[in-house]
This record gives sequence, structure tokens and C-alpha cells, in this order.
Amino acid sequence: MASNFVYNTRDIKFILKEWLPTEEIFAYPKYDGYYSKDDIDMFIDQFYKIAAEVIFPTDEDGEKNPVRFEDGKVIVPPTYPAVFKYIQENGWGSSNIEDTERVIPQILVCFINELMTAASTSFPGYIGLASGAANLIQTFGDQKLKDMFLPKMFNGDWGGTMALTEPTAGSDVGDILSKAYPTDDPRIYKIKGNKIFISAGDGNHAENIIHLYLARIEGAAPGSKGISLFVVPKYWVNEDGSLEDNDVHATGIEHKMGQHGYATVALSLGDENKCRGWLLGNPPDENGIGEGMAQMFQMMNEARQGVGVNSLGTTANAYWNAVNYARERVQGKLSTNPKAGRTQIINHEDVKRMLLVNKATLEAIRAMLAKCYYYIDVAHNDPDPDRRKWAHERIECLTPVCKAYPSDEAWTLIGESIQVHGGYGFTEDYVPAKAARDCKIYSLYEGTNFIQAQDLVGRKWSMKKGTVFANFLQDIADFIAANQGSGEFTKEFATLEKALTAYKEAQAAIFNYMKEGKAGMLQTFATRMQTATGQLYGAYCLLDQALIAKKRMAELGPDHYDYNFYYGKVLSCRFYVGNVLPKVWNTTDIVLYGDDSVVEAPSEIFDY
Amino acid sequence: MASNFVYNTRDIKFILKEWLPTEEIFAYPKYDGYYSKDDIDMFIDQFYKIAAEVIFPTDEDGEKNPVRFEDGKVIVPPTYPAVFKYIQENGWGSSNIEDTERVIPQILVCFINELMTAASTSFPGYIGLASGAANLIQTFGDQKLKDMFLPKMFNGDWGGTMALTEPTAGSDVGDILSKAYPTDDPRIYKIKGNKIFISAGDGNHAENIIHLYLARIEGAAPGSKGISLFVVPKYWVNEDGSLEDNDVHATGIEHKMGQHGYATVALSLGDENKCRGWLLGNPPDENGIGEGMAQMFQMMNEARQGVGVNSLGTTANAYWNAVNYARERVQGKLSTNPKAGRTQIINHEDVKRMLLVNKATLEAIRAMLAKCYYYIDVAHNDPDPDRRKWAHERIECLTPVCKAYPSDEAWTLIGESIQVHGGYGFTEDYVPAKAARDCKIYSLYEGTNFIQAQDLVGRKWSMKKGTVFANFLQDIADFIAANQGSGEFTKEFATLEKALTAYKEAQAAIFNYMKEGKAGMLQTFATRMQTATGQLYGAYCLLDQALIAKKRMAELGPDHYDYNFYYGKVLSCRFYVGNVLPKVWNTTDIVLYGDDSVVEAPSEIFDY
Repeated sequence: MASNFVYNTRDIKFILKEWLPTEEIFAYPKYDGYYSKDDIDMFIDQFYKIAAEVIFPTDEDGEKNPVRFEDGKVIVPPTYPAVFKYIQENGWGSSNIEDTERVIPQILVCFINELMTAASTSFPGYIGLASGAANLIQTFGDQKLKDMFLPKMFNGDWGGTMALTEPTAGSDVGDILSKAYPTDDPRIYKIKGNKIFISAGDGNHAENIIHLYLARIEGAAPGSKGISLFVVPKYWVNEDGSLEDNDVHATGIEHKMGQHGYATVALSLGDENKCRGWLLGNPPDENGIGEGMAQMFQMMNEARQGVGVNSLGTTANAYWNAVNYARERVQGKLSTNPKAGRTQIINHEDVKRMLLVNKATLEAIRAMLAKCYYYIDVAHNDPDPDRRKWAHERIECLTPVCKAYPSDEAWTLIGESIQVHGGYGFTEDYVPAKAARDCKIYSLYEGTNFIQAQDLVGRKWSMKKGTVFANFLQDIADFIAANQGSGEFTKEFATLEKALTAYKEAQAAIFNYMKEGKAGMLQTFATRMQTATGQLYGAYCLLDQALIAKKRMAELGPDHYDYNFYYGKVLSCRFYVGNVLPKVWNTTDIVLYGDDSVVEAPSEIFDY
Repeated sequence: MASNFVYNTRDIKFILKEWLPTEEIFAYPKYDGYYSKDDIDMFIDQFYKIAAEVIFPTDEDGEKNPVRFEDGKVIVPPTYPAVFKYIQENGWGSSNIEDTERVIPQILVCFINELMTAASTSFPGYIGLASGAANLIQTFGDQKLKDMFLPKMFNGDWGGTMALTEPTAGSDVGDILSKAYPTDDPRIYKIKGNKIFISAGDGNHAENIIHLYLARIEGAAPGSKGISLFVVPKYWVNEDGSLEDNDVHATGIEHKMGQHGYATVALSLGDENKCRGWLLGNPPDENGIGEGMAQMFQMMNEARQGVGVNSLGTTANAYWNAVNYARERVQGKLSTNPKAGRTQIINHEDVKRMLLVNKATLEAIRAMLAKCYYYIDVAHNDPDPDRRKWAHERIECLTPVCKAYPSDEAWTLIGESIQVHGGYGFTEDYVPAKAARDCKIYSLYEGTNFIQAQDLVGRKWSMKKGTVFANFLQDIADFIAANQGSGEFTKEFATLEKALTAYKEAQAAIFNYMKEGKAGMLQTFATRMQTATGQLYGAYCLLDQALIAKKRMAELGPDHYDYNFYYGKVLSCRFYVGNVLPKVWNTTDIVLYGDDSVVEAPSEIFDY
């Protein structure tokens, strides 16, 4: 069976209960004393049960009964509508956007989404897009729009989308051709345009789909600054709540390598000149500058963090499937003790290496994502404006890395999980083949990973004259200074320090190339520096966690049932620092070497 | 369309005409003066035409009409039988095994196979397996077997397989359960057993399938040394040439993530006790030692080199598809000149980086494979026994690397080709999605890439007290010494020397771990040292080629139509040396760091 949900929540609970100061978050007035650290196990276990029992069946369904496009209609896999309704209605989905009642803290939403994706790669997008669309209405809509749309977007009656991409405008979203024309009502515009790649863009999972739609109001400025954002429902909502056709048409779905249950839809709006949308916020100013891109970007950051979480869930589920296979499969003899006879392959060093690079990297990724979501809670809720600013700046630095590093690693790590399965890994009888097919979109959507890298090295590195990023790195330096002399992990601390120094050297070298007029070098090394940022920050998080784990190991002793969890945390840290972190200074070596063949290469050489 | 054959043969011609001393090969008596360097363009162009016109249509056919298993029969895609016959009958396929008439030199067969795989990933296996099976009969069979089987295996009437794997015996082939029982005829045995994962294991592409089948003769020694090899035809061949049922049954096919046109078959033999096979070579000796594994291993080396070639063809076709897409797709502005307006994405640095890592790595791979096939021709044909030995020893060192490095890189490089396509890369409308699905088997079959790594570091490193591998590395040292002072590529030569020194340091450190009793460390670092070997040897080949290319650039001048090819060769070398080769000394850093968490890790930690 190509679907198999095998997951362990122990690391999630460790993060929430032993690593991050979750109690600070729970104490914020918004959360109203509803959550406490003591309830975390129950909370996670409860959602794990939902993931396993309610959501997981959608995974196989999505493969066996992929999304279809028939007679102009998008038909989702049969199990999806009821599960969509269930998750939304029970408060695990879109109702958890900011400022709604009894909202679940973001630090917990992070792990709900991890478990949801692990249980089913295709399904959660329908929830995620509804949340994103609702969040925009919540943040930028007036009370009328909120009342009209949010209750039904929260309870699972209606879905939502982010409608950005057009055939000629992908990474280049400023070049969209969709147009909006004023009507007698200043809040309402006629919409005309085509969109492609609209995730959850149509389907029978919901009775209405609310598109958050980018278009240019006639006469507005060209490029991204002239764009406005509209609420364009598939069915227009009349004052009495009745629905009528709004001239929004699905024209096809993509045939994708994975995520076959997730509808990726092409849309045509206003073919009969009858499509209307509500403008979100204000019309373009006297210079033709609209608010659309800024509005969309708020949601984009959340979408990017979410992609990191999706990457984690998909990859970790493939990893634990590989662990299960490796425990059962008997093949070969131990290299260190061949006379003992055949053994489970989990005992072979190369298999352990492949599993450990998965385990360590996934724990590093889970840690950095958790930290990012922790900062989101602080940034949105802390009473102290300095702390909000502090958290917000950390989010700025972490967001591109939290999107790109997990989604880049997904491809490599799932490749290793396939490899653990031997020839069976190539078959669709085991999970990793599907996980590989499913995961490849993560490095591409919500801004390709190079768009993230440009954001990191082009914007975040130099934000506020570089102080924001310097502070971000200073956290690591402070951590080293505070703990280096403790006698624990001496080699690991020295290695982290070496990597941090090397990272700064690479930054300095790149800035120097720029000063020398070699402008293309920033772009040339951007992706690699993004990976290095993930490796550096990941090692920092794992070492921080290992300090706790080491202490717990000593307290518990080797016979305690939980000992191996903490032992595993220590080994994750040692492996990651000793095998992954050195790549940071190798990237520095490569930056310092400064090969400029990428910049120099004329496109003609690629004929050969 | 998910199939698209976009290929350029200029680098192949460069290798054959300007880099390797192909004339030496062509002068061997076996080739009978039939080939000359002057005919290379024609030869390659001719086969390119066949690849494009005859073979390429099988690629789409394999996706649209995948192999089916119906009523106990395996049905290949509709176009396959005629193309199989065409290729075989016209002498491009199995008739090119050693010692047949008018055989095509191996150095050319290498590129025939590259083009064949590039044009169609699934189809060439049917040819390749027939060749492998025929080669075993040719080498170890008596005249009777040769006469009975070879003519029809050469002309496309019959196919062939290597039937090794069983449900409980994959990497561990010595543990097969298939049995052979003597009959009245000492050459003929009754066969009973089950096999899985038999590529081209059945199908309507041929009227008979000749299985080269591993089984243990009753009473022979346990493990791999007791195994014998049998010629087991699907239909028994009577003395008069008529065929009769031989109790060989296909019981199913695998549902794979890619290569949907390629039959991966489960077989059951002797269900009715009527299956017979011809023993190849001699029965087990008085100690129960059979000849089967040694015989099979001869073919295994060729199969491994062939997998490297398949990896190259599949990956390079994805690369050139990405180049074509990047040339056409307009998106974004140049980072170095935004005012020039929107541009084709091939002009963006990160896209160029992704294309250049493909181009440079693929040229390094093509070079090392070509060298390996060159050595094969020398080893089999040179009149001087010292030269044959020399070439044979180089093949020993290169074979695991030529299998593993291309197949590991395939996954990463095709991932980059997907990335070049942006969101479209995730759709099956473009080639890279299919190439990714197709390529993943290469790292798994014919010995997983860890089996290759064990062969490299466990056997080849220490063969003849380490002298064989030392000589292999000495080629690189000699090359550096001979050219370092030329004034060309000073930085690149210094970098190659640094990497070579680092490689030896890593070897020494690993041997030292072994001496200290840390036996698991060899296994822990085996895969990474294999990759480092590919990187080191690849850089050596590219630098050797770049010396020629630089000279040609100067001779031709920038206006010559061929200038950009040579310029591209120089940039490939510069990029690879400056961006890939430094990973060799990073691997050394990691080896010297010597983290032993892999060895230490108990399997219980992977629960978490």
C-alpha cells in the first residue's frame, strides 16, 4: 500500500514541553488561559488520532481517485468533502487565523499542520488555502466582508484560494494581465482575467470558493506596485445570503507528478463580463499605487512557513516508513561481525547513515520551524513592543530559510528513504516513491527557492543596514559564549563556532564582490548561502536541544523507557554537527574561491 | 508532452575525435580496419537519427501504454516489439558483445547506449538484458549452446534476462533458494524456484526469453560460492529448433514510480516440475563450489557500467529540455541590468548555475564513462599483456564509481532541471518529472550504490596491497605534474592537487580508524568516499579536456561556429573545479572529524 502513516510525536512534545518557553505563549491574553503545558501531550495525542483516523484515509483516496476535471467541474477525491467539513467544523483548520475566538496558538498550529501533511500530502492544502484567504479578509476586510465570508470559511461550507499566477506571470507576479474595472459601487469591481496553478482553485469539497484575486484596476501603475487584491467568490453572495453564478470558470487541472488529490486549477473569470469582486482595502492612490502586493505578502510569509512544515511532514513520514522497512528487512551480515549471520538492514552502517541524516536533519528542521512559529506568537501577541519587534525581525530572517531548506532537503532525504528500501523503493508499494513525487512542488511554489534565496541575501542580509541579520547571527554567538565552557559538547561547540565564523566570512566575501562591481556573484551564491544558513541555524538548534537531552539522560539512566529518545537527540546533534555543519565552511571555501563561470557563461554554451 | 528527445552529440564527438586515442582501438585486429576516426561523425549522426526516429517513439508509448500483466502474460507497449526487432536485426544491439563478427567497439557502444536511453528510458533494457544474457552464453557456453541460442538472441527473435533476485535474496544474492536437480543428461538440470525484479523478464517483444538463471545444485555449498548458472529458456528448444513449454511462468509485474514501459517481472519456475535448464560451465567441484557467481560477475561489471551510461542519457536529456525551456520562458529582469526589462530565464544567474552544474557534471560523467569503455576495449583487445593488465586494473577502480556517481547525481541534477521549469517542472507536461521518476532505479539495481561503495573501499582500495588503486590515483598526479607548469589553468591545477592530497588523507584516516579497531568507520564513510572519487576523477577528466578546448578556442577565434562548444568545455571545467571539486576536501574534513554516531547509534533511536 502506497499510503502509510507512521509517525512519532515525541520530538514535538519535547519541543513544546522542554525546549521552547511555550508557557510564555500560553500566558498571552488572547489565549485566555485555555492552554497549559500540562495539556500538551493530550492536545498532540488528540490531533494525532484525528490525523491517523480521519485525515489519513484521504491520502490513499487521493492516489486511487485523483482529482478529475469533467464537464467544466473539478471533482475532488470522494473522501475529501466530508473530511474538509470535519476539520473545519471542529476548529482544527481555518478558524485558527489570528484574532478569532479561542484560537489555537501558532506554535501548536505548526504541529497540527505537520501531522496533517504527514497523514495526507494532498488534502491539507484545501484547509491551508481557505485559511490564507480568510486571513486576508480578516486582516484587510471591513466588517461587511468579514460577516459575509468568514463564518462559512471557518465552518467548512466554503473554501478559499490565493489567485496570483497567470500563464506569463509566475515568479514575476507584477506582470499579471488580470484587470478590474470600476462599477457604480466603489467597493465592487468587474473582474476579467485568467489564472493558472490555483491550488484548491475549484472543487466539490465546498459549496463556494472564495478567491483572493490579484488584478490591476484600469489605469493603475504597471508592475507589482499597481496591483490590487479582490475577494472574488465563485458564486456571488447576495444580501440575503443566496448565491448566484459569478462568471468564474475552471478551465482545466494540471497533470502533476504527485499530490494527485490536490486540485491545481486553471481559471477564467469574466468570460461573459459578469464577474464581480470586492476590493480589499483602498483603491490605488493618485500615483496608481495599489495595496494588493503588500496585502498578499502578509499571507505569503505564512504560506512560506507552511510549505516548510509540509516538507517536514512529508519527509518525516517517508523516513519512519524507511525505519520500519529497515527493521523488518533481513539482508547481509554485519560488517563488524559477519559470523553472527544475517541481520536486519537497520544494523548496517550505510543504512544507519541514511536514517541518521534523515533523523538529524528533520529534527533540525522541526526545531527551526518551531522557533519561527514561536516568534510568530510573540510578534503578534507580546505586550512589549520591543519584544514584538525582536520576534518580528527573527521571523524576517527565518522565513526564507524555513521555506527553502526543508523543501530542498525533502528531495534528498526522501531519495535516501527510497534507497533504504532497495529495489522496493522504486515501487509504488512503499511510501517513499509517492513522497518523492509529492514533495517536489515544495521547492517551487509560494516563491521558488531561489526567490527565497534572493529574499534572504538581497533583502534580509541588508535590512536596517544589516543589523537585523547581525542580531540573528548574534543569537548563535551568544549561545556559544554562554555554553561553550560547560564541559559538554566541547567539540560540537568549537565546530559551531568555526561554522559561524566561516558563514560571516562568506557574507563578507560576497559583499566585497559586490563592491568590486561583480554584481552577479550575490545571485550566484544565493542558493548555497541559503542552504548554509539552514545548516548553521539547524546545528545551533540541535546543540541547544542536546544540552537538555544530555542532562535528561543522566537523570533517567539507561533503563528508563524514555532514555533512547534523549540518546537519539544527542546522536542527532553529534551527527549533524560532524557531518552536515562542515558543509557551511565548504560553501565559504567555494565563495572565497570565487569562480565566476556562472556570471560569465553566455547562454549559447548550453547548446552543448 | 512528457517525452521530448533533445540531445546534442558534440561532446561525444569531441571525446572520440579529440580527447581519447580512439585510433588505437580501431586499429585492433578484431575491428578489422572497419572503423576510422574520419567516420565518427557519420557513425554518431546515423545512430542519432535512429534514436530520434525509431527509438524515441517508444518513450511516449511506454508512458501511455505501460506494460500490462494479463492472464499470466506480460504485454509490452505496442511499439516495442517492432523496434526491438529493428535494433537487433540491424546490428545496433546484442550482436555487439565480444567476439562476434564486425562487432562495434565498446567505446562506440557506450555512446549508442547513451543515445538510446536518452531517447527512451524504458525501451533499451530489453536490448541490454538480451546482450548480457547472450554474452554469458558466448563466454561460458559450449558450441552447442552458442549455436542453439545466440543467432536468435542477436537477430531480435529472442530476448534474455539475468535472473538473480529472489524475495529474500536481493543484495544478498548468495541466499537464493532456487534449486537445480540433476537429470540423466549431465548438462541438463531440473529447475525449481521463484525470482522477482527480473527486468525484461517476460513480454511479447520476443518469441522466447532466455533466462540466465542462478540456482543451487542440490548438495552444493551454501552461500554464494555454491551457486551455479543455468540457461533456462521460457520455451525449451528442441533439437529440430521447435519450441515447447518449459514451465516458466510470469506471476506479476511491479508497479513502479517510473520506466513504465519496462517490464519488471516476478517468475515462478518448475511449478509442474517440468522446467529444465542447461548448466553453464562445470558442475560444483568436490567441495560444492559452483562457477555461477564468478560467471555472473563478469556480466555484472558490464551491467554496472551500463547503468552509469543510462543515468547519463536520462539526466542529459532532462538537462537539454531544461535548457530549451529556459531559453523560451520570459520571467523577471536581469539582476545586473533591471532596466533592460524582462528576460529569458536562461540569463538569470541561478538558472545558469543550475544548468551549469548539470552541464559540467554530465560532461565529467561522460568523460569518465568514455575512459572506462576505452579501457574495456584495451583490456580485451590489446596485444600487449601489460597493457591489458593496465587497462583491466583501471576498469576495476572505475566500475563502482561509473555506476554510482552518475546514478546518485541523476537524482540531484534532474531535481535541478525540474527547478529550472518552475511550477511547470512539477507537471507531467515537461520531461524532467518523468526523468526523475525514471532515474531512481539506477542507484538501486545491479548492486545498490552502497554495494558499489563497499566494492570500491573494501576491495578496490586494497586490491594487490593497494597498488592498483595507488596507480589509478597516480594517473591524476602524473597529469598534474605534466601540465601544472604550462601556464594554463594554474588555479585549477592547484585545486586538483589540493583535492588529490585531501583524498589520500581521507583514505589514510579511514585505514587508521580500521587499525584502531573502529571497523564500522570504513562503512560509514564508504558512500561519501565513492562520491569524492567521482568528483576527483571527474575534475581530472574535465581539466584534461579543457587543455584541448583552450587551444582550440585560440585557433578558431570567437567568430567560429564551433567556438562556443570549446568555450563551454572550459567553463564546465572551471565551474566543476571551483564548485564541485572542493567537496572532496570537505569530505576529508568530515572523515578527519571522525564522528562515530553512525556506528554507535542503536536501532532504537530511530523510533523517534
